Amino acid sequence: MQTRAAVAFGAGTPLEVTKVELDGPRAGEVLVEIRATGICHTDEFTLSGADPEGLFPAILGHEGAGVVVEVGEGVRSVAPGDHVIPLYTPECRECPSCLSRKTNLCTAIRATQGRGVMPDGTSRFRTLDGAPVLHYMGCSTFSNFTVLPEIAVARVRPDAPFDKICYIGCGVTTGIGAVLNTARVEEGARAIVFGLGGIGLNVIQGLRLAGADMVVGVDLNPARRAWGERFGMTHFVNPAEAGGELVPWLVNLTRTPFDPIGGADYTFDCTGNVEVMRAALESCHRGWGVSVVIGVAPAGAEIRTRPFQLVTGRVWKGTAFGGARGRTDVPRIVDWYMDGKIEIDPMITHVLPLERINEGFDLMRRGESIRSVVVY
Amino acid sequence: MQTRAAVAFGAGTPLEVTKVELDGPRAGEVLVEIRATGICHTDEFTLSGADPEGLFPAILGHEGAGVVVEVGEGVRSVAPGDHVIPLYTPECRECPSCLSRKTNLCTAIRATQGRGVMPDGTSRFRTLDGAPVLHYMGCSTFSNFTVLPEIAVARVRPDAPFDKICYIGCGVTTGIGAVLNTARVEEGARAIVFGLGGIGLNVIQGLRLAGADMVVGVDLNPARRAWGERFGMTHFVNPAEAGGELVPWLVNLTRTPFDPIGGADYTFDCTGNVEVMRAALESCHRGWGVSVVIGVAPAGAEIRTRPFQLVTGRVWKGTAFGGARGRTDVPRIVDWYMDGKIEIDPMITHVLPLERINEGFDLMRRGESIRSVVVY
Repeated sequence: MQTRAAVAFGAGTPLEVTKVELDGPRAGEVLVEIRATGICHTDEFTLSGADPEGLFPAILGHEGAGVVVEVGEGVRSVAPGDHVIPLYTPECRECPSCLSRKTNLCTAIRATQGRGVMPDGTSRFRTLDGAPVLHYMGCSTFSNFTVLPEIAVARVRPDAPFDKICYIGCGVTTGIGAVLNTARVEEGARAIVFGLGGIGLNVIQGLRLAGADMVVGVDLNPARRAWGERFGMTHFVNPAEAGGELVPWLVNLTRTPFDPIGGADYTFDCTGNVEVMRAALESCHRGWGVSVVIGVAPAGAEIRTRPFQLVTGRVWKGTAFGGARGRTDVPRIVDWYMDGKIEIDPMITHVLPLERINEGFDLMRRGESIRSVVVY
Repeated sequence: MQTRAAVAFGAGTPLEVTKVELDGPRAGEVLVEIRATGICHTDEFTLSGADPEGLFPAILGHEGAGVVVEVGEGVRSVAPGDHVIPLYTPECRECPSCLSRKTNLCTAIRATQGRGVMPDGTSRFRTLDGAPVLHYMGCSTFSNFTVLPEIAVARVRPDAPFDKICYIGCGVTTGIGAVLNTARVEEGARAIVFGLGGIGLNVIQGLRLAGADMVVGVDLNPARRAWGERFGMTHFVNPAEAGGELVPWLVNLTRTPFDPIGGADYTFDCTGNVEVMRAALESCHRGWGVSVVIGVAPAGAEIRTRPFQLVTGRVWKGTAFGGARGRTDVPRIVDWYMDGKIEIDPMITHVLPLERINEGFDLMRRGESIRSVVVY
């Protein structure tokens, strides 16, 4: 079949909206009509050429929602008509990772997904000239129709709006999951969130959900103060106003008469900047503070600190897709949205048709959007 | 009173065994007759001058056992005649850290201990000329008699031999505690221990206690293979024989037909070398591997890695005194020794009188001892 898609023909060039050929689903695969897709920094990371593992030409996009149109041989868990969210972190429930009960990082199709192909080693996409076009993060939601492995779709309730729940396919789940699954923040905790973009704000609403008492937001952009407060931030710190000594400033902010040591129980890096990651670790409380790296760093960048920071009880960890198991946890997060437990609508600052997808990237680069969503 | 002590008069010079003046215990303090003390790398770290916070002249030593001789005003938890192990990590049970239920790093007397004085800001030691001599790590077990805060002694059963249980004052508890308290290793785990000295061997016996299935020991010294096997090591790797690619070698070693990803569930750095700490983290299993830093790094040294290592599920943490609460957990470890649950005797490779304490340092520097113990 033919479908409309925004194709990334090379690094550093705008996406090209065009028709492409799409083969139908093979065994264990499903054909999904994408109804809406968010534009995420990770798409930009690859499109810009900064991702050393980026491959072209490819159809980017990994934060979508849509409807199953057709299923391949042997597919049992979804059927045509089902509403689904594509999963760049699949959940096979059979691999050592899924069976470990310790991680969401299913490894069933990791190798082929990284090469931009389906588990059988081939792509379903071609240009109209027949030249191969690669998949991206196993999703390629910048195509109106796409093919995914059965284990890479989460079935969700049919009354949830596509143009909102697509955000659960990455940003919402990553932010909230980092709090609930990875950090396991408890009631009354003190937390610091570095970077109040599309991930950071979801960390903040995750902290509100978890019952944190103190939620400090850190961002260089003063406009983000109002955004943070909108979702539960209790204190805002602009590093430019902290006198160049951000860590002591933050530690001091978290001090109490009972606890003169200070430091956050939990910190979250949502910037991808390795210097910020270090500040996030070192802002943690001596003895038990946990710092979670969420942001994706530039190629080759390294985090560093004195080991004394760890020996005195700070813990450095990271999260991918918020530690969420896609097929198990994503439907529940959709329920939370529909039940009003979490918010999404105000974060969707821009809605665009596919033809204007490059504008969405521009808005993100300029820091003017929280989330732009493309609707088909 | 006067007491015999090995005094460190300056960095890089041998200890000087001499008589010193010792004031009696003030309020909240106890006078302890030290019967035996281990010699630990941390003493050497300070004596060598490598520790930027090292102060001189001081009486080093922090791994001892002895008998309470006299108690100061208000002391209720111990009495003369009680057998005790001095604690460089005290346990006041009242500070925010002790009450957090999340850390053993009591902060009640941290500031004064770091300055080499008692909580009231003064030292109990003087030379016979009246020149001040500092305490060390709140213990100073290289003195036959020493004064400690009440919260810095663990009362232990009286039938346990001093020349063995002194090792519980640091090395044994640090190694076993890193496994049980910090990593919380579960039955059946696969673990790698870097550095098979006095700490590493105790990590190994901690892993045996925890029921680990695979216990890989890594050391450049081939003589340490037999030592590791003595306490439960199942595999030995000499990095010199791993072709310069230690991490892939170790990951490969931990692969199984069921789990082709490989990597250890838990790794422990017992070297203090920041490059080894990185290898320890990166040898962890994707998705859930936990690496625990135990070793003390040189001043200014930094650990580093790509944040991708954390984002894909590895956790970097550290431990001090094995996460053990001194007054609560140390008596239990003494019981474990007396009950035969853990071994200490074979690790005490050398026993020396105080006059030969510098020989103990030489043996340690040359890697010829596991633990030298000085008996008074």
